[in-house]
Amino acid sequence: MTRAPENLIESTIQAWEAVREHGPLVQCLTNAVVTGFTANVLLALGAAPAMVDIPEEAGPFARIASGVLVNLGTPGSEQREAMREAVAAAQEAGTPWVLDPVAIGVLPVRTALAAELVAAGPSIVRGNASEIIALDGSGAGGRGVDATDGVEDAVAAARRIAQATGAIVAVSGAVDVVTDGAREVRLGNGDALLTRVTGGGCALGAVMAAFAGVDEDPLVAVVAAVTVYNVAAELAAARAAGPGSFAVAFLDALARLDADTLRSRAVIA
Amino acid sequence: MTRAPENLIESTIQAWEAVREHGPLVQCLTNAVVTGFTANVLLALGAAPAMVDIPEEAGPFARIASGVLVNLGTPGSEQREAMREAVAAAQEAGTPWVLDPVAIGVLPVRTALAAELVAAGPSIVRGNASEIIALDGSGAGGRGVDATDGVEDAVAAARRIAQATGAIVAVSGAVDVVTDGAREVRLGNGDALLTRVTGGGCALGAVMAAFAGVDEDPLVAVVAAVTVYNVAAELAAARAAGPGSFAVAFLDALARLDADTLRSRAVIA
Amino acid sequence: MTRAPENLIESTIQAWEAVREHGPLVQCLTNAVVTGFTANVLLALGAAPAMVDIPEEAGPFARIASGVLVNLGTPGSEQREAMREAVAAAQEAGTPWVLDPVAIGVLPVRTALAAELVAAGPSIVRGNASEIIALDGSGAGGRGVDATDGVEDAVAAARRIAQATGAIVAVSGAVDVVTDGAREVRLGNGDALLTRVTGGGCALGAVMAAFAGVDEDPLVAVVAAVTVYNVAAELAAARAAGPGSFAVAFLDALARLDADTLRSRAVIA
Repeated sequence: MTRAPENLIESTIQAWEAVREHGPLVQCLTNAVVTGFTANVLLALGAAPAMVDIPEEAGPFARIASGVLVNLGTPGSEQREAMREAVAAAQEAGTPWVLDPVAIGVLPVRTALAAELVAAGPSIVRGNASEIIALDGSGAGGRGVDATDGVEDAVAAARRIAQATGAIVAVSGAVDVVTDGAREVRLGNGDALLTRVTGGGCALGAVMAAFAGVDEDPLVAVVAAVTVYNVAAELAAARAAGPGSFAVAFLDALARLDADTLRSRAVIA
Repeated sequence: MTRAPENLIESTIQAWEAVREHGPLVQCLTNAVVTGFTANVLLALGAAPAMVDIPEEAGPFARIASGVLVNLGTPGSEQREAMREAVAAAQEAGTPWVLDPVAIGVLPVRTALAAELVAAGPSIVRGNASEIIALDGSGAGGRGVDATDGVEDAVAAARRIAQATGAIVAVSGAVDVVTDGAREVRLGNGDALLTRVTGGGCALGAVMAAFAGVDEDPLVAVVAAVTVYNVAAELAAARAAGPGSFAVAFLDALARLDADTLRSRAVIA
Repeated sequence: MTRAPENLIESTIQAWEAVREHGPLVQCLTNAVVTGFTANVLLALGAAPAMVDIPEEAGPFARIASGVLVNLGTPGSEQREAMREAVAAAQEAGTPWVLDPVAIGVLPVRTALAAELVAAGPSIVRGNASEIIALDGSGAGGRGVDATDGVEDAVAAARRIAQATGAIVAVSGAVDVVTDGAREVRLGNGDALLTRVTGGGCALGAVMAAFAGVDEDPLVAVVAAVTVYNVAAELAAARAAGPGSFAVAFLDALARLDADTLRSRAVIA
């Protein structure tokens, strides 16, 4: 993390242009609530979603995908098997993959699965503060999908996960913190309306997988994904009358984003 | 049901304010078609959705949730197991739960499951006229998810279900009828566009679970849920150019509702 | 296919009016990503969606449905069993059914299933060029859900499938080609924004099943479905600021369509 913030802004713009140009193929093994929104976010961004999440298909596809998302929101038994298959294949093939340990802590099946998968070595881990603390084993998790801890309370846990696994770890909140285990980048864009739309966090994990599919440096991929996503949220919030029109405007804003807007609005510290 | 209608209006407003204040945690075991819309409705309302519907997680979560929805729209085998687990845990823990027997009558798996679950003692049963008649065993059910019977034709069946189970029973239609087995409340708000959006009925079951999570009296919870939901639908219909823009405006309206609007528009008889 | 294009336009309008009048019951066994959007498209059109896709229910329902969609986008093991059941029952009962072989070619489970189901004799097959070529066995399939072949490259494959199975085969693309194995109809309506909304293609398969449920002639059903769908897309694109607002406007446009607009905009050759 030797780059200055202004370099991260330019890297963000380059990564975003690469996503638009190459249309990375993003395999999503994600929860049943947010599949449609996630696919629409990826399409608006210029990526190509593919929800390939059954055994015997998830593995082969992870070898050819640009990036893979593993989101534990509704982990039925068949999807859990597919997740293990996809993760093993991604590791072998060198496909970057994102782990989103949704609502771990209280819920036993996903908590055990998250512990197993994080040990396999994800490229990126994304969660809210309570999820990151629970994944680190230093807390009990949140209340369903909501964080009950603040982002700054999770930084030490995020750092430990990054050090132990080699992953870039992103903690979502009012300010997003991204760490490689050595130091942190703080990202100041976003809007609270994102928390009033289901999948507001989950789709960000898919966007990280898209950026990881076009940028060699997973830290840049995460910073770029968060910044592009959250700048689009700000643009959408300015046009929204509530969470319904916000979600619509968010997809429009993602599709209409331009480099000058990104450059002028990005808050990276 | 000794309260006068005007008291039910004030109780509705108090219940709605309690939902906003406490953000009840609503566990949804619901069908694959409406998960996203249901979660967005709960978020717009100010509640916290959690779609925890796999075995070994559904039970523990039902103990800590504020309310549980069990909707039989797409009851795969693993979800059926999770539903049994959630219902047993909710009964033990005293968590209020809502049964929505979607499309029972013709379809054998869900019809048998609905008979089993209703015997476990739901706090609330919600359905269209054909579903309520089928649950009572007095009819053959509707045509897929559509009612082929009128609401008033289902009142006797609703009353019998309420008497047999202790549940509050709500029959959805142009006028909604709610009964505790002794007498009926008729709720006159709503808009036909709700029937042109998938999940228009299913999400109401989740909203009932949210209200049941903050109000001791399940009758008040049901009346409040229906009224808040249907007043938001009226506000949305006034701004909509069709079912697409209606769904968007509905979420906005739910999020922007205020007590004065509720008081002036509520039709409770 | 002895009808002149102008007759196909009038047949399209008559079929569309029949859908509005009769509200065909469309059973969808479709992928988890697009269930909500698909149901909303059918509701906007005036049809009645029913996502009955579990074993022991899928078969009985296929006997009473007006039309059935079998879409292979996320074919879990239980849904595969339900698909076999629904197809067998549809064949026996004479219910028209549509096969949409999503992303076959590279992915082994769905590729084998598509080969099995197409041999059962679908009324209609719908896919993009790469899927049709893969189904014909003459190519390796596309890249996830995206076609990597042009529509015209798939015409020979489409013709062979139609001849071998008796199905009407539709290849989606900038121009849609529909064949009965003897000759082709080319349909020129549509908008590229449909490819930026998840389910833009999948929901069309459901619309074909709706039209097949009201029109004796499956060729007319397909031409009418594509034309109605794509004219609505054009109307929506004219009002959209991006893919989010396009999807909303598309549902509104489907619901507000009228015969004069259809007649003046339909491009059938």
